[in-house]
Amino acid sequence: MSEQMNGAESLVRTLIAGGVNVCFTNPGTSEMHFVAALDKVPGMRCVLGLFEGVVTGAADGYYRMLGKPASTLLHLGPGLANGLANLHNAKKASSGIVNIVGEHATYHIAHDAPLTSDIEGVARPMSHWVKTSPNSTTIAADGALAIEAACTAPGQIATLILPADTAWGPANGIAETRPQPPLPKVSEDAVKAAAAMLTSGQKATLLMGGAALRHATLELAGRIAAKTGCGILTEGANTRLERGAGRVQVERIPYVVDKALGVMKEAGNLVLVGAREPVAFFAYPNKPSLLMAEGAKSTKLAGIEDDMHAALEALAIELGAIATPPARVAAPRRPAIPTGAIRPETIAPILGALIPENAIVVDESVTTGREFFGETAGAPPHDWINNRGGSIGYGLPVAIGAAIACPDRKVLAMIGDGSAMYTIQALWTMARENLDVTVLIFANGSYNILRGELTNVGVRNPGPRAVDMLSLGRPDLDWVQMARSMGVPARRADDCAQLAKAIEAGLASGGPNLVQVSM
Amino acid sequence: MSEQMNGAESLVRTLIAGGVNVCFTNPGTSEMHFVAALDKVPGMRCVLGLFEGVVTGAADGYYRMLGKPASTLLHLGPGLANGLANLHNAKKASSGIVNIVGEHATYHIAHDAPLTSDIEGVARPMSHWVKTSPNSTTIAADGALAIEAACTAPGQIATLILPADTAWGPANGIAETRPQPPLPKVSEDAVKAAAAMLTSGQKATLLMGGAALRHATLELAGRIAAKTGCGILTEGANTRLERGAGRVQVERIPYVVDKALGVMKEAGNLVLVGAREPVAFFAYPNKPSLLMAEGAKSTKLAGIEDDMHAALEALAIELGAIATPPARVAAPRRPAIPTGAIRPETIAPILGALIPENAIVVDESVTTGREFFGETAGAPPHDWINNRGGSIGYGLPVAIGAAIACPDRKVLAMIGDGSAMYTIQALWTMARENLDVTVLIFANGSYNILRGELTNVGVRNPGPRAVDMLSLGRPDLDWVQMARSMGVPARRADDCAQLAKAIEAGLASGGPNLVQVSM
Repeated sequence: MSEQMNGAESLVRTLIAGGVNVCFTNPGTSEMHFVAALDKVPGMRCVLGLFEGVVTGAADGYYRMLGKPASTLLHLGPGLANGLANLHNAKKASSGIVNIVGEHATYHIAHDAPLTSDIEGVARPMSHWVKTSPNSTTIAADGALAIEAACTAPGQIATLILPADTAWGPANGIAETRPQPPLPKVSEDAVKAAAAMLTSGQKATLLMGGAALRHATLELAGRIAAKTGCGILTEGANTRLERGAGRVQVERIPYVVDKALGVMKEAGNLVLVGAREPVAFFAYPNKPSLLMAEGAKSTKLAGIEDDMHAALEALAIELGAIATPPARVAAPRRPAIPTGAIRPETIAPILGALIPENAIVVDESVTTGREFFGETAGAPPHDWINNRGGSIGYGLPVAIGAAIACPDRKVLAMIGDGSAMYTIQALWTMARENLDVTVLIFANGSYNILRGELTNVGVRNPGPRAVDMLSLGRPDLDWVQMARSMGVPARRADDCAQLAKAIEAGLASGGPNLVQVSM
Repeated sequence: MSEQMNGAESLVRTLIAGGVNVCFTNPGTSEMHFVAALDKVPGMRCVLGLFEGVVTGAADGYYRMLGKPASTLLHLGPGLANGLANLHNAKKASSGIVNIVGEHATYHIAHDAPLTSDIEGVARPMSHWVKTSPNSTTIAADGALAIEAACTAPGQIATLILPADTAWGPANGIAETRPQPPLPKVSEDAVKAAAAMLTSGQKATLLMGGAALRHATLELAGRIAAKTGCGILTEGANTRLERGAGRVQVERIPYVVDKALGVMKEAGNLVLVGAREPVAFFAYPNKPSLLMAEGAKSTKLAGIEDDMHAALEALAIELGAIATPPARVAAPRRPAIPTGAIRPETIAPILGALIPENAIVVDESVTTGREFFGETAGAPPHDWINNRGGSIGYGLPVAIGAAIACPDRKVLAMIGDGSAMYTIQALWTMARENLDVTVLIFANGSYNILRGELTNVGVRNPGPRAVDMLSLGRPDLDWVQMARSMGVPARRADDCAQLAKAIEAGLASGGPNLVQVSM
């Protein structure tokens, strides 16, 4: 190249050379040199979001499906702040993301212009790695470090802050990203301790999480279960679970504390494989935080940062189970489609009947979806994605990232109406990118989960102020108009037959579409 | 009361006793005891937002109009994070806000549940005051401290973190909020230095900001200008400017650096009254950060935390100008309504013709609005509100807060389409509260400001990647359907006559309504 590249171009080229070739963007003035570099350098797919929570959530979904980071482009501290809630969710899901956050030129910061803020301070609570690159000759190397941080097993949030003069000043070229070391193998002692727990004669369960929820690893768990009689469980919310007919089936620990305690009592001692001792989502007066059964013990076979497949393989060998046919394999089952009114219990079999093979199901169905899991267990093989961080508004953006990552698969996003409103701008990006996403909005017109929680804290007959704060009514949201306003075709379903037809039509369309599931 | 109150109730009662009687809310499970207390205790108006940026922006608008803080209710770290961008804007506007942020029960935090995060870390970059209240007997006193912090002149962001067990445990009663001390008076030396600068024979200008932009204080500036021949200027973005026919007129420093430098050259030396030496919004290669004319000096008469009205009064007396009829008083002027196509230059006179007396104009018109200010100077008296922090998505939420604060006034929110999408959920709250807000969406289908900035950084013929990242097209947003989906009546205007008619009808409706201004 005869023309010297600037810092922004050296960063874009470093990202692409390091395997980061998707950028979810919401740029501003301070990022214009980066945008110009994206324009100039081929090889980066740029996907615009109209709100930063869409951008960061999409990067989360992308990582969950491909296991490699996308980049985001965010405008200064407030732009990063808008993306922070979904970075929280991504962090809890161990998704790797490279955030590029624009900053004023280094000499401009001291002048405290309107958009000046403590960007590192904003980044830190939701990032594993934060760095402001001081000048245009350092940014390529810092970009490589950011990729390495994001790729560090099991995946990390790396936030690289790019001052405008670092972007526009002259650079020396690109930097190389070092490959990741192989995943750590667990110790023989950990394998022996797990084997001892599973063969002690006491009830025991494999509690699985992270990448241990892939088909091949679950099959090892199934062999161990067949040999020892142990259970197989996961936490309530999973990064990505491969499931469906012919695969080893895993139950999730319920959200409601009393139900969870019942399940954990049955589970007994725990062998932890990419999971921690289970914890309640929230604390409640006179209920425990830790959901372990009384007297139950746990032993850690492998953490999410370890080679969990190898660990389970070693355990299966130790137990003589490596050739045992797996237990708990889900039989193919397509429930009959019910008729009549739409209720959580009638939606579940409709989903079980219609989830297509190889679908990616993004579950943010909150209260509506509590029965979905069981009824869909026998559907053809599919992936199931949950919110690991609990900040609602994750589902629509994650669906975007999953669809970008896997253009040949159908995405079914099941979203509560309250949740959908946090990042509703995602619909526009689905339309622009013509993504194969069918969105179900469960329109119960309330923060239904909170009604239950209000009862839990002792309010039996809430007054109008409380009811109003938990209701999405006055006025009702019209999801069909909402979707169409952003270019997404939409239908409304008022009974089970309409719902089944709408889901079938949506999935068949091959493009983005939304179904208002009126309840 | 025979029943002992809990921490949440003691906090609600402390807030109300301290004059904080509006709560913009988006609650979650960890805030249910606070919601229950709001339900039980009369005296707090609760306004639900479906996204936290709406909540915090509304609190900003409320303070700008009333000069007293509202409270917000936010759900843990991610809920606060979603509200952070508009807290940034509020902080830069010196708006006082009391944020109540729920947190897990203190003993639950160590278990690192899904929603656990470093809430204080999230709060700090956008707060002046942050405290986690350790237990239910401290929360009332901490609530009073939060109110005092929020009310500290000229207004501060106070973030009070409320662990669930602090909310549900037993309290001792309410706490009293101490009154604020009177605003500091400026020194005689400061007055004399300002007088000397204005009478030195060199060009000089009063650069005004904050609460100095109220009618009565501006009149003092007008008397001084009449006596000394000085100019009167404000920064580009103001918290709230009282203006219109019969009031002393103030020009704003333009956004574009070269234009700003021209204005500042004319301005000469600066007497600072609630303003700082002006700074460019962004840095650009080979352009200055500080917009002072070469060789110009400044002297600080009063900061925004001082009694600026008294300072200008003292200065007027010092100059013998206290009885001089003010200069630069705007003459009543209603421009003729143009015909034909809608362009920025034709919208401006329509606004000048139609802005009603006593209106609150919230300006987030970005590129479209660069000519609005001049053409509306002679409209009947009204308030003009700008984005002090520069994070777009402030306008619709601030309009909510202004309308709640001033139910007898009409609010005209002028919003660029790109900006509107960040906090579009605000429309629903406008509908629910039946607020008298007319929203104009300038639908130019792009982040138009960034097209100019891309040219500024040297990209003359942007390729498809760059164009796509700055365009809101593919698909176009349908603002009429968007508004109706959230219960807000809407119209589309395709020419000047339609636009004038739509604005008139919207203002006459007395309720929320939206006009898609198609450009």
